[in-house]
Amino acid sequence: MKTYNVAVVGPLGLVGNKLIDILQERNFPIDKIKFLGTNRNKGKEVKFRNEVFFTEVAEEGAFKDVDIAFFCVDSNVSKTLAPIAVKEKAVVIDNSSAWRMDKDVPLVVPEVNPEDLKYHKGLIANPNCSTIQMLVPLKPIHDIYKIRRIVVSTYQAVSGTGKDAIYELNNQVLSYFSHEPIINSVYPYQILFNLLPHIDNFLENGYTKEEMKMVNETKKILDENIQVSSTTVRVPVFNCHSESVNIETEKTISPDEVREVLKKAKGVKVVDAPASKLYPMPIYVDGDDDVFVGRIRKDFSIENGINMWIVADNLRKGAALNSVQIAEKLIEMDLI
Amino acid sequence: MKTYNVAVVGPLGLVGNKLIDILQERNFPIDKIKFLGTNRNKGKEVKFRNEVFFTEVAEEGAFKDVDIAFFCVDSNVSKTLAPIAVKEKAVVIDNSSAWRMDKDVPLVVPEVNPEDLKYHKGLIANPNCSTIQMLVPLKPIHDIYKIRRIVVSTYQAVSGTGKDAIYELNNQVLSYFSHEPIINSVYPYQILFNLLPHIDNFLENGYTKEEMKMVNETKKILDENIQVSSTTVRVPVFNCHSESVNIETEKTISPDEVREVLKKAKGVKVVDAPASKLYPMPIYVDGDDDVFVGRIRKDFSIENGINMWIVADNLRKGAALNSVQIAEKLIEMDLI
Repeated sequence: MKTYNVAVVGPLGLVGNKLIDILQERNFPIDKIKFLGTNRNKGKEVKFRNEVFFTEVAEEGAFKDVDIAFFCVDSNVSKTLAPIAVKEKAVVIDNSSAWRMDKDVPLVVPEVNPEDLKYHKGLIANPNCSTIQMLVPLKPIHDIYKIRRIVVSTYQAVSGTGKDAIYELNNQVLSYFSHEPIINSVYPYQILFNLLPHIDNFLENGYTKEEMKMVNETKKILDENIQVSSTTVRVPVFNCHSESVNIETEKTISPDEVREVLKKAKGVKVVDAPASKLYPMPIYVDGDDDVFVGRIRKDFSIENGINMWIVADNLRKGAALNSVQIAEKLIEMDLI
Repeated sequence: MKTYNVAVVGPLGLVGNKLIDILQERNFPIDKIKFLGTNRNKGKEVKFRNEVFFTEVAEEGAFKDVDIAFFCVDSNVSKTLAPIAVKEKAVVIDNSSAWRMDKDVPLVVPEVNPEDLKYHKGLIANPNCSTIQMLVPLKPIHDIYKIRRIVVSTYQAVSGTGKDAIYELNNQVLSYFSHEPIINSVYPYQILFNLLPHIDNFLENGYTKEEMKMVNETKKILDENIQVSSTTVRVPVFNCHSESVNIETEKTISPDEVREVLKKAKGVKVVDAPASKLYPMPIYVDGDDDVFVGRIRKDFSIENGINMWIVADNLRKGAALNSVQIAEKLIEMDLI
């Protein structure tokens, strides 16, 4: 079996950390691995397969011996660093939003559009977490029933913001318990016992960047003719994003048909027995690789409509796992 | 000024309690007041306008001297007790779902359909909390632009379930803090850091009763031709329900027009300056009488569509306040 030299860029963040776990869990075919970070984090310990590594600096020259570089860093960092890695012949799989809408960069969910990997020029973008988990179940439905329009409202966990947001929610619980003032710095307002209809920055059109990502990325990944209307909301949940998804299809569709399609779909788990109180919930989906779908029912307000409730681990399928699956697909398709 | 003999039935619950506050705040024209509850709660202390009262038993004969009876009890209790009160010539304003869809019972939001009070036969139903707060801002929009379809996803606070649910969320925080097992009995699963796509019981069609209330009550109150698709979700928030609402209108509509209409609307407060991070949030709406609307923006996925984010205090406007406003309207319209 062929093995690869791998770099994880940004190994100390939530997604980097999860990616390291997943490379081990899935026994990714690694020859050598290195961990690259900022100057400030140089020399930090990282454990991998019972060995201790020390982070090196992500800079020119660092990618010369790298086949696959998993980027788990901010957009700004990726903007400058990814081209350097590509120039040094590494294939970059980037988790940030920096390259997603670039025409030369495939934006891939392996269950949805693996064929787009064929046009990669050394750089592949991992889609936004909320988009990935929505498209995994919608793709097989779209194949048969043709989706015209999606109206989605999200319930997004704080882990999507990063480690600091997890600490912030946790600290707010401690302050609440101790009757001390609740402090916020990551979010503009308290998140404990609250909801923020605000994820990422606001744009001129009144939408947040997160909302427009769901619109634009869905068109790029699944079908440019699908209309998407999105509202994204941060909720006091540690991990796993949830979505209330309403679809309108061209062909007649029924909940039973949707369940049948999704039961056969890769990467999807149908949990839909409301009479037995079975439906997906974030605290139970945490740590799972699948996208969970439940509450599948006919939308009586239009001719061909379906409502459903989609929950997935945003750090796994929404980020780290999807990146590793992209790399696996590249290998399988002999594109690396 | 004419004054009335008032009874509060179920004064010890969250809604009953809030109703007592509101009667005092608004200086409701009361001659005599009494508090009626179960046999078990007989003799419990209730304070009203610096006087101490003791609860009496809600039974035959208790309504003989009552002009207006505010019912803050379960559906089952209301089913048997309301007809007794009506027979004894009290006008009943009922918070439960028992009578809402009864053809002879007006279902009223005073800002939306006060004229329906004219056909009351002694019994008036207070709509479901999520329906009330959605219809207050949608009514003035519907008057001008004619709403065809609503797709709504809710983010509902635990106070909607009652006192025990508030204790349960609070106790789960304490257990989390003390690293003790998190216990649930009010909800089928942990609500802290979790989401339950399950409010009220499930029906044969896959919807919950709460979801179908939003569909059916909207038709009864606002317009039977409006199509509604609803998903209701319980979130770990103590008080105030939030809603992500998508509407499609017959006439051309713009966010600026909606803002203008809503700024003039009674009972509505527009908080919509995302660039300054101003949008409605449950912890800040708590205790307020108005329905807060923000994140008003064009839905680009259809010709005439608008998205908005609606937050209101479900115990006040969603229940107790609306009941008192119904009574005030009855007086104003000389219907009592």
